[in-house]
Amino acid sequence: MGELVFIGLGLHDHLGISLRALEEVRTADQVFIELYTSLLPAFSTEKLAELAGKKLRNIVRKDLEEENGEVVLEAAKTGKAVLLVPGDPLIATTHVALRIAAEKRAIRTRVVHGASIVTAAIGLSGLHNYKFGRSVTIPFPDDIPSLTPYQVIGQNKKLGLHTLCLLDIRTEEKRYLTINKALEQLRKIEAQKKDGAVTENSVAVGVARAGSNNPVVKADFVGELLKHDFGEPPHTLLFIGKLHFMEAEALITLADAPEKLRELSE
Amino acid sequence: MGELVFIGLGLHDHLGISLRALEEVRTADQVFIELYTSLLPAFSTEKLAELAGKKLRNIVRKDLEEENGEVVLEAAKTGKAVLLVPGDPLIATTHVALRIAAEKRAIRTRVVHGASIVTAAIGLSGLHNYKFGRSVTIPFPDDIPSLTPYQVIGQNKKLGLHTLCLLDIRTEEKRYLTINKALEQLRKIEAQKKDGAVTENSVAVGVARAGSNNPVVKADFVGELLKHDFGEPPHTLLFIGKLHFMEAEALITLADAPEKLRELSE
Repeated sequence: MGELVFIGLGLHDHLGISLRALEEVRTADQVFIELYTSLLPAFSTEKLAELAGKKLRNIVRKDLEEENGEVVLEAAKTGKAVLLVPGDPLIATTHVALRIAAEKRAIRTRVVHGASIVTAAIGLSGLHNYKFGRSVTIPFPDDIPSLTPYQVIGQNKKLGLHTLCLLDIRTEEKRYLTINKALEQLRKIEAQKKDGAVTENSVAVGVARAGSNNPVVKADFVGELLKHDFGEPPHTLLFIGKLHFMEAEALITLADAPEKLRELSE
Repeated sequence: MGELVFIGLGLHDHLGISLRALEEVRTADQVFIELYTSLLPAFSTEKLAELAGKKLRNIVRKDLEEENGEVVLEAAKTGKAVLLVPGDPLIATTHVALRIAAEKRAIRTRVVHGASIVTAAIGLSGLHNYKFGRSVTIPFPDDIPSLTPYQVIGQNKKLGLHTLCLLDIRTEEKRYLTINKALEQLRKIEAQKKDGAVTENSVAVGVARAGSNNPVVKADFVGELLKHDFGEPPHTLLFIGKLHFMEAEALITLADAPEKLRELSE
């Protein structure tokens, strides 16, 4: 009977994989890898292939989203197939769809978890995890304009909650939405809607290259943050709701926030 | 100049550590490990010490929460100290406090991320990550009774959002709150408050031993879930808000949910 193991690669490069995951790759009959759902900026397929002693077959968006992962399912029918994915697997809905398809064909599925940008960005900011409301992805402005991110930030803010914003990527075109572009876009919507979700004086945290040895974590008022250079992608953006005094302390010490934040905390 | 590296051990056992993290441990002058903020049920300190070729010094709650991590900070003043923690570091607020204390003493800090129960439980359930509202920890019922978890579940539900509930642990006493006990407790509060947050017909998902090779993931109505045996800890509990039809499909296929859930989805 066949088996399909979803394996999370964690963050940044080929060294984010866990010992358990590497062992699963070593004992697989076929190893697939997809690198389009998130950006691992320093990842080397060659180096991971060498570490695991296996050939890695690259899977692109079309394989999963148009052909429903048929090539992976076919391999998993008779042997042990592994699908390597950035971050923690099954956070991207396309992987959940593939897992359901496999189970429906009586292919056993398992999951080996990896570090995710969701907890990494929150952890690096020093903000309290249980104070985050729902998260949202900010799409490129040239897509159909979406009010959702602005509304989610506003709804969370009214509840005193923070918002984690993942920023859109188009790996195939090597295009990655930046913190600055995302902020500009939200400011434009604010100018129209005037709900106060993202004003000049809103506090936000930009996180760049989480999982690398030199992540940039910078908290400030949106007006100031717009001028900050975060460097290379990937970028993530957090909006602040109500600030606990311990969180203000964390942002000042760990995220180079202005001392003034202390006055806004409670 | 000294350095303190926070390293996430990931889930379940000593093989959850990443290759990058293991390399950091190998090159450290002193290695500390705390295993009280989360349960890694199959973790072996001896095996990790052997893999890393280092002595691991155990840190208990008192070291961090009463003595403010003085022993770790002292070691980090002059050399490279590493603190190993379950899951993804800095999700527990006590680690953030230690990081702030280190930076204030001009000790450089870095973070190596690990897999977290937060994204693992959500991924295993097949539910959509961006549909989760704020998360909450359910304390033992013999602590000061807290209405917060009940209120958070209710607030999220009104917004159509799911809730991730972490269940309290007292590692020192080897006591771990179970899904069944947590559900009983919430049902008792429901009987008093009658806000409809956790009724017999609420849908929830229990996740046991995420990160192991045999996690139990079971979705059902609360009345049924109360009778389910989830086995050994750690346990996590998810409450459902509005269910997308793809999520219903995932719960039925991946979490053994009753077919009836399909009718509740949209």
